[in-house]
Amino acid sequence: MSVSVAPDGTVFSFPTPEEDKIEFDILKRLSEEERKRGRKIVVVQGMGFVGSVMAAVVADAEDRNGEPLYFVHGNDLVSRRSFWKIPVINSGKPPVSADDPEIPKIFPRCVNEKKTLRATWHPGVFTFADIVVVDIQLDAQKPVLGQAEEGYCDLNAFKQGMRTIGKSIKPECLILIETTVPPGTSEKIVKPVLEEEFTKRGVDIDKFPPMIAHSYERVMPGSKYVSSIRDYWRTFSGINEKAADLAEKFLTNVLNTDNFPICRLGHTNASEMAKVLENSYRAANIALMFEWAKFAENIGVNLFDVIKSIKVRKGTHDNMLRPSLGVGGYCLTKDPVLANWAAEALFGLEEKLPLAVNAVNINDLMPMHTLEIIEDACPSLQDKRVAILGVSYLQNVADTRHSPTKLLWENLMEKDAIISVHDPLVKVWTELGDMRIEKDLSKTLNDAEIVVFAVGHKAYKALHPEDVVEMCGRKPLIVDCSNFLTDDQIMKYLEIGCNVIGVGKGHIKQLKEKFKK
Amino acid sequence: MSVSVAPDGTVFSFPTPEEDKIEFDILKRLSEEERKRGRKIVVVQGMGFVGSVMAAVVADAEDRNGEPLYFVHGNDLVSRRSFWKIPVINSGKPPVSADDPEIPKIFPRCVNEKKTLRATWHPGVFTFADIVVVDIQLDAQKPVLGQAEEGYCDLNAFKQGMRTIGKSIKPECLILIETTVPPGTSEKIVKPVLEEEFTKRGVDIDKFPPMIAHSYERVMPGSKYVSSIRDYWRTFSGINEKAADLAEKFLTNVLNTDNFPICRLGHTNASEMAKVLENSYRAANIALMFEWAKFAENIGVNLFDVIKSIKVRKGTHDNMLRPSLGVGGYCLTKDPVLANWAAEALFGLEEKLPLAVNAVNINDLMPMHTLEIIEDACPSLQDKRVAILGVSYLQNVADTRHSPTKLLWENLMEKDAIISVHDPLVKVWTELGDMRIEKDLSKTLNDAEIVVFAVGHKAYKALHPEDVVEMCGRKPLIVDCSNFLTDDQIMKYLEIGCNVIGVGKGHIKQLKEKFKK
Repeated sequence: MSVSVAPDGTVFSFPTPEEDKIEFDILKRLSEEERKRGRKIVVVQGMGFVGSVMAAVVADAEDRNGEPLYFVHGNDLVSRRSFWKIPVINSGKPPVSADDPEIPKIFPRCVNEKKTLRATWHPGVFTFADIVVVDIQLDAQKPVLGQAEEGYCDLNAFKQGMRTIGKSIKPECLILIETTVPPGTSEKIVKPVLEEEFTKRGVDIDKFPPMIAHSYERVMPGSKYVSSIRDYWRTFSGINEKAADLAEKFLTNVLNTDNFPICRLGHTNASEMAKVLENSYRAANIALMFEWAKFAENIGVNLFDVIKSIKVRKGTHDNMLRPSLGVGGYCLTKDPVLANWAAEALFGLEEKLPLAVNAVNINDLMPMHTLEIIEDACPSLQDKRVAILGVSYLQNVADTRHSPTKLLWENLMEKDAIISVHDPLVKVWTELGDMRIEKDLSKTLNDAEIVVFAVGHKAYKALHPEDVVEMCGRKPLIVDCSNFLTDDQIMKYLEIGCNVIGVGKGHIKQLKEKFKK
Repeated sequence: MSVSVAPDGTVFSFPTPEEDKIEFDILKRLSEEERKRGRKIVVVQGMGFVGSVMAAVVADAEDRNGEPLYFVHGNDLVSRRSFWKIPVINSGKPPVSADDPEIPKIFPRCVNEKKTLRATWHPGVFTFADIVVVDIQLDAQKPVLGQAEEGYCDLNAFKQGMRTIGKSIKPECLILIETTVPPGTSEKIVKPVLEEEFTKRGVDIDKFPPMIAHSYERVMPGSKYVSSIRDYWRTFSGINEKAADLAEKFLTNVLNTDNFPICRLGHTNASEMAKVLENSYRAANIALMFEWAKFAENIGVNLFDVIKSIKVRKGTHDNMLRPSLGVGGYCLTKDPVLANWAAEALFGLEEKLPLAVNAVNINDLMPMHTLEIIEDACPSLQDKRVAILGVSYLQNVADTRHSPTKLLWENLMEKDAIISVHDPLVKVWTELGDMRIEKDLSKTLNDAEIVVFAVGHKAYKALHPEDVVEMCGRKPLIVDCSNFLTDDQIMKYLEIGCNVIGVGKGHIKQLKEKFKK
């Protein structure tokens, strides 16, 4: 277990004690040199989906004369899952894959040209920091599907991370938490841990209260990945006025705040709440639309036409979301749970957030409805060949975290269906035992009796019905999970003799009815 | 009971049989004359909040040469509640009061100048109609507060109205339903009734199927009342293609469809659903925010600051609504109930709309929370003088339908508080036994120990804390129901020595904390 393997297969051995020692000397020398050049030293903790790109954005920040403002140490753990990112970054390559053209540019620029970004595993790096940006992953646990009210957040690793920082940072160092945390975390978890560590070290916390601030990103996977971190509104807050001032200065320096002004809130509880409320709002919106999708199906209405007619009302109704196979990704599936858990665990409240957490339950179980409408059209799934098109949780991205396709897949397996899975972007389905994903659509479709349009990837939307039917070699049942097919495509499938069913679209009979005219 | 009294006190006697006869002759002559002039005859049934203004908008419609397109008969019942509207309209006055400057202009223009609008009580008017626009009021019944799932819709009067129309209209007459109806109403209620009446009259319904269409308005009370009917997007549908075509032509003629294109849906179920979904979406959004308001209060956060920071995300988060005293008006309080009821009653579905209907329950009970925070700050309300500022359900309008102030008022009464109520716009509180509403703020505030900012009328937002305290003659507890007070106003109240509490704003202690700095 003393190696970490990069996605391209390269094996990296964990550092030896000797390398540890050398690394610390490098960190010390580099930090001192860079500080002499007038640059502040930033450590970004966590080289994941957000942290690595945030590190690059900070390293890319310049003053008006084009001089870099910060030198950034990207920090991550010596673990099987993460260590490879450190040598990869230091070779000038991105540790994330994305179809954003900025990604393959910003890393070599900062690492090799500007020389303002370097990654390290060494926890001694915090000693040199003026600013620590925390991007540690923090999950919600949902032990039972459909019972998100029992969900919780294990803050132990996060707390340990804070302790590591507290042991070595300068007392006046700003700790900016970017991780989505349960509301109350900065005040009730981070602050006491840092105060404890400061006190242990003999730091007078009345004179040097820990400088904790919170600001959440609004990153979106896809073609504007970097921009979604840099060129977008931020909300932030500080545990005290000075911490908020420090955070404001830092964010103004590194983000495009001229075009996307930052918003300062009065308390870390407020900005922590803002993040989870944003996502709870979306989750609840989707859950509501799913309820109406089923109603629409039952009364022969195409909900997507209805939604389109409502969304003309900009500013009041155009946030309306849509039903689909289900809700995946890292935010909407967990943030309401973080808030609901925090209400009791961090604030001792009896009243929690039932609407938000119920939305998570509805969304988590949503894939079962696609199974339901499939079974309605095709009662026995045993030995039925089902082709699932799309594994990622979102169209046109390769991200499979909490993808709803997983629940559909598992339940089709249970019904003894014969499943083939395709995705043009996903190479390996990590959440399903690193399953290799087929890239050849004709292989996936070959002999399929049921074709599930699970994700709205561009390539799927462009598929001609004739081609699909030809690849299947028969007339499959077509399942449209979120209005991915146009009316023309549906009409063509019906003409060919396929049945078509769709979430929120009404069942076969009504669809046929509609197209009879 | 043979009179109807206008709001200004004028008494109108119900028509005699002789007047009935004369009226019919007038209708016949007028309709024939107008038709000879090339105008289509429109009957708008229901001279209420929507129908009367819709009638005026239709009567005001002109072709490219400035020639009126339609002659409009506004129709309503000979009832104590409604009959007065007929002579009032015919005198050129609006039967509704509103602070929209178009209202006092459009009625005299159409009635006296263009002579394209006349009101009548006589049901014989339908005989002459080319188009009937249905704006009958249709309520949802909610027998038990907080149990909207038991709510229902009594369609009998509506059905009777349709029967009256069916008895006399020409078979090719378009019936355009504007009333918000339970989804399924056009198809499952209106169509069979009309077919029945047609058949009774010997009309061959295969040759002359009833021409039923549905299109809902999106009227908003306030300064753009007329415009919200005429200059706004419409969704519509027909029971068959021809009815949809007729409705499309009519709507294109009378509405500003150049700037606000109309949207045609494939089935009356779809457009009926669209209306109730629009409002269910808003109702659910408010219910969610109320849950977070309580969370915010409990953890010392001002939810309104949080919402402001989130709403910068246009198109994805800017529909986010806000907690308040409660939800009133005619749409959000009933539309989810109409849909939930229809699912079972009109479609026989087991699965209904629990999220939408639960939102109604949460919103209906919301005023209890204001009572709760008042009692938290002031445990015994017996003989406490409470001044409530605002009776309407919405800021800057006089509309008191389902106003949340009512539940607060009733519960304060039950606690034996001494209540005074003020509203700058509402003269008489119809829903509370025609209670006369005080217009003199100093009288309402005199000696008040608790001042509830219930509605965000402009006049209330502009109040200086010093003046409020002076009018009270003491330092009252200030209750802000929906962020009506600015931070500066709150600070001033706190400086003076008043306590301030607010829905979604955190309690006194935290507010003080915030302003200490």
